[in-house]
Amino acid sequence: MPHIQLNNDAPGIRSLVLYRPDTGQPLYELAQALLRAGSPGSTLVDAERELIAAYVSSRNCTDFCQNSHAAAARFLYGDNQSIVDQVLTDVDTASLSPKMKALLSIAEHVQTDARTVSTELVETARQYGATDGDVHDTVLIAASFCMYNRYVDGLATLTPADPAAYMAMGERMGTLGYVIPQSGRTNQA
Amino acid sequence: MPHIQLNNDAPGIRSLVLYRPDTGQPLYELAQALLRAGSPGSTLVDAERELIAAYVSSRNCTDFCQNSHAAAARFLYGDNQSIVDQVLTDVDTASLSPKMKALLSIAEHVQTDARTVSTELVETARQYGATDGDVHDTVLIAASFCMYNRYVDGLATLTPADPAAYMAMGERMGTLGYVIPQSGRTNQA
Repeated sequence: MPHIQLNNDAPGIRSLVLYRPDTGQPLYELAQALLRAGSPGSTLVDAERELIAAYVSSRNCTDFCQNSHAAAARFLYGDNQSIVDQVLTDVDTASLSPKMKALLSIAEHVQTDARTVSTELVETARQYGATDGDVHDTVLIAASFCMYNRYVDGLATLTPADPAAYMAMGERMGTLGYVIPQSGRTNQA
Repeated sequence: MPHIQLNNDAPGIRSLVLYRPDTGQPLYELAQALLRAGSPGSTLVDAERELIAAYVSSRNCTDFCQNSHAAAARFLYGDNQSIVDQVLTDVDTASLSPKMKALLSIAEHVQTDARTVSTELVETARQYGATDGDVHDTVLIAASFCMYNRYVDGLATLTPADPAAYMAMGERMGTLGYVIPQSGRTNQA
């Protein structure tokens, strides 16, 4: 049960955005700018952005965000969706490009202690083809999920147990992106 | 030196917002909504919000954010500004209300592992007069500074050494709030 009276029965971040639209608006706008590409100078596609979000959420053990963003990544990867489970199981053995592995390593350092993101880590990513925009977006996606995860967990929001609920959220996030929910429409990511 | 080419010489978050205004806009709007009151259902004044931001930043060892938000808190506390250094030195012995101590304890748990924010911690804060809005804002301020801190540290942005630079930032933040910087105007928070 959530720690405060949210006056709605939506799950995860959605319940918080319905409770406080004034902070919810910039939170959703940030997710849309970061996870739905068109980022200047970045080569990352939406599926890769959602994968970074799911990976950081799994490292923070935030089930709601891990499950919903993993579902969005699976939807966006389409035929290659098994890559998501590979990364969540063991990133070292996943069939992923060296560039994405280097970026996930940067994301991991941001999640643990961002002061440990070294020149060497960034240089490695660059050698495998990462641009400044890719490094920027990876750092900010990882940092922002350290916020979203804590917001959802710190207020003990509702976490659905049914995998089908996340599949529906993933498809919605993959097609519509991050649109602030309206009162009365619940059970969506 | 920053890990990526930012094309400006502004310090901390300001350099990142100038580099990427599309993500900078919601980041500044979130800070304005959270740190400059008028929050529905919350009793927290701006000085207390800045104190939570400085406290979380100090726990994340992010000097830029700690120094600038401590300066903003000192400016806003005015005659009572020594409270900021007391909290940053030892929150247990600080001359702070039991309500603020309980809220800082929640912030501390959000910073470390938000899943450890317990019903008991929230009940204690409530017994000392904290509202649902206070709990919400404390959790989101703490969570959001776990993002801002990582964003600033993960890209190794410029951290001024001169205390006078932070005093100027604090006064600016205390009077103008969080207004997205324009190109060419640097060295401000």
